[in-house]
Amino acid sequence: MISFELMKRLSLQNESKIVFIVADGLGGLAMKAGGKTELETARTPNLDRLAARSSCGLVDPITPGITPGSGPAHLALFGYDPLEFDLGRGILSTFGIRCFQKTPMNERNVAARMNFATLENGLITDRRAGRVPDREGRRLASLLDKGVGSIDGVKVTVEHEKEYRGALILEARGLSGKILDTDPGLLNKPPITPAALKGLPRAEAEKARKTAAVVKKFVQRAAKILAKEHPANFVLLRGFDKFRPLPQFQEVYKLNPAAVATYPMYRGVARLLGMEVLKTGTTIKDELKTLRENFADHDYFFFHVKKTDSAGEDGDFDAKVRVIEEMDAVIPGVLKLKPDVLMITGDHSTPALLKSHSWHPLPVLVYSKYARRDSVRKFGEGDCAAGCLGRIRATDLMPIAMANALKLAKYGA
Amino acid sequence: MISFELMKRLSLQNESKIVFIVADGLGGLAMKAGGKTELETARTPNLDRLAARSSCGLVDPITPGITPGSGPAHLALFGYDPLEFDLGRGILSTFGIRCFQKTPMNERNVAARMNFATLENGLITDRRAGRVPDREGRRLASLLDKGVGSIDGVKVTVEHEKEYRGALILEARGLSGKILDTDPGLLNKPPITPAALKGLPRAEAEKARKTAAVVKKFVQRAAKILAKEHPANFVLLRGFDKFRPLPQFQEVYKLNPAAVATYPMYRGVARLLGMEVLKTGTTIKDELKTLRENFADHDYFFFHVKKTDSAGEDGDFDAKVRVIEEMDAVIPGVLKLKPDVLMITGDHSTPALLKSHSWHPLPVLVYSKYARRDSVRKFGEGDCAAGCLGRIRATDLMPIAMANALKLAKYGA
Repeated sequence: MISFELMKRLSLQNESKIVFIVADGLGGLAMKAGGKTELETARTPNLDRLAARSSCGLVDPITPGITPGSGPAHLALFGYDPLEFDLGRGILSTFGIRCFQKTPMNERNVAARMNFATLENGLITDRRAGRVPDREGRRLASLLDKGVGSIDGVKVTVEHEKEYRGALILEARGLSGKILDTDPGLLNKPPITPAALKGLPRAEAEKARKTAAVVKKFVQRAAKILAKEHPANFVLLRGFDKFRPLPQFQEVYKLNPAAVATYPMYRGVARLLGMEVLKTGTTIKDELKTLRENFADHDYFFFHVKKTDSAGEDGDFDAKVRVIEEMDAVIPGVLKLKPDVLMITGDHSTPALLKSHSWHPLPVLVYSKYARRDSVRKFGEGDCAAGCLGRIRATDLMPIAMANALKLAKYGA
Repeated sequence: MISFELMKRLSLQNESKIVFIVADGLGGLAMKAGGKTELETARTPNLDRLAARSSCGLVDPITPGITPGSGPAHLALFGYDPLEFDLGRGILSTFGIRCFQKTPMNERNVAARMNFATLENGLITDRRAGRVPDREGRRLASLLDKGVGSIDGVKVTVEHEKEYRGALILEARGLSGKILDTDPGLLNKPPITPAALKGLPRAEAEKARKTAAVVKKFVQRAAKILAKEHPANFVLLRGFDKFRPLPQFQEVYKLNPAAVATYPMYRGVARLLGMEVLKTGTTIKDELKTLRENFADHDYFFFHVKKTDSAGEDGDFDAKVRVIEEMDAVIPGVLKLKPDVLMITGDHSTPALLKSHSWHPLPVLVYSKYARRDSVRKFGEGDCAAGCLGRIRATDLMPIAMANALKLAKYGA
């Protein structure tokens, strides 16, 4: 991939518009050898017709064989080297929660994801506190936020995200994000005591020790405040990191980008890169409406479809097929807006067979006046393997979209 | 790509011969959605027959989505990382003009491309001075070369290239190539005053200021000398750079290379890399004759076809088709020479539809006794997408050619 420095030099502003649909966990596998994947099983007349008029191919989120989390996978889709821009989940969650704020975080902030959990006799017996509902989660987070106050001069904020999930945000000079997860990841284990990561350079180790001491006091105070709550009588923390600003879409690509996404984490990544997060509903149809209503105001749209991934994670092949068909149904509405470039892919594969993210490359289609057509007539993993894009990296997609929108100048004379 | 250091270690000398045909701007697009590209439209029985006996694929000049200039695109074809070896057009032009000299430039030289232009009332009204013909351009360049002399101890040379184009070459210790183009790039604008680029480190800035002062005096003296000429009464300068030697083909690949090219710029790149530039005529047939006559004396031949690009730039689809058919006609003559490896591709795409260079990958074929055959039966963008080379980078081509010529040792035990 080319450097951001070069991309800044080459990128051009013009009137053309890019729509980038990302179906989370789109790629799949057949449940039985020789069968069809979720996407190949789905009835997708609109996607197929579009594929026939597009350049198709396969995309590796990171490099072949590597299964990515959603954070790095999305960074790659937006042209950010996921091995370089390695931000903790705590930052992404906080950006998601605060995506409508002017300045979600600053460089004195350290954040972690927080789960409400159940602690019995010193052991974690439920890492999600019975998946407490939204309202209850919000009440508990607010209790902590008000009850903990500041610790050793560090401002402590607790935000609620969804159900049993939230974020812990610390603010002070000289904090470090190099803190161990307190979530043991397994049941009937004690929570891990907040501590600095090992092997840090001395100055960082000092900051991390101080930060860990603050986190330890936070966990103690939280346990006290939640002592009489059940099942959410404890908190687990993971994905600590310190905020550092990333290059912004506006600077790198000279785009005015917007995000249409229903889930906080994806809004968070988008916001982190400078996208305006648009308020939207909960269905793909709602998202189309949001796209339509805001189409005049931006020149790049990240359109995220979440439930392909959720269905895959649940191992529900048929549910994933249905979400794909739901997505297919909005394609004519997207095309009606006449985007100059329409790119459709996923962030990673989530085969129902594996009930988890996987390393399999994803089908992609690039539709534009200047995209070469190929022999692909159906949007699916097998067919796209024969497409004219070949097998490319997720980080190649932004340059390809920009080129097709005639938004990239020539490199060299 | 592997490093030059490793390539030097692995490369071997033997008797086998490589011919590398580069059709400039070869890749194209259909003029109408669903139609055929220039190459797919052309009748190319020889190329098709050859493709059927070759490994085929698609090549990205730089990385997917990036549109290259001819300079970086050719460097990549020759295995030089185009993002690392970023030489100004002034250097390439000067090497083109002086390609038959033993030492075209030295490390005290700074060069720029020079255009004769028309200046009226302080504004540029023709950036090419009515495209003054060759003889007139030569006379005017000679006037400047003799008339300007040296400036502040800097030796000033003006060379004629073709028609309204030439080069300005400065020679002295302590010059800098970090000088702004004086060509405003648009009509009815005043020329830009020679100045140092902004944001240079202090030592370089000092050199650049001195160099810019010399260039400023040159432009003033040139304007005086040309005052009574019309329409070529002014000069515009662009692509300033200081010469620095590049790794030579002989060292890196242990090859004895020769270039058959009709245009100075391509001869320049070839000469810069240490190739012997062979004197040739103006047609592809002339170039075949030159190849035949010199075939015994070299083991690597860069064979450049220019007019595919010119036709594309003119938006003349049919003319580009004709040039491709002309190229097809020389293929039997090339095969008659029995090269051990014959590789055919372009440096970048120049679709007539876009009238400019583009980012689209290029078809490539590699013909050798050791190249796997694939299902491709026609040399075209769509067909080559299904070839066994897949989608590769231009910098991969030299190693592939060397390997097929059995000129690369094993890496590691």
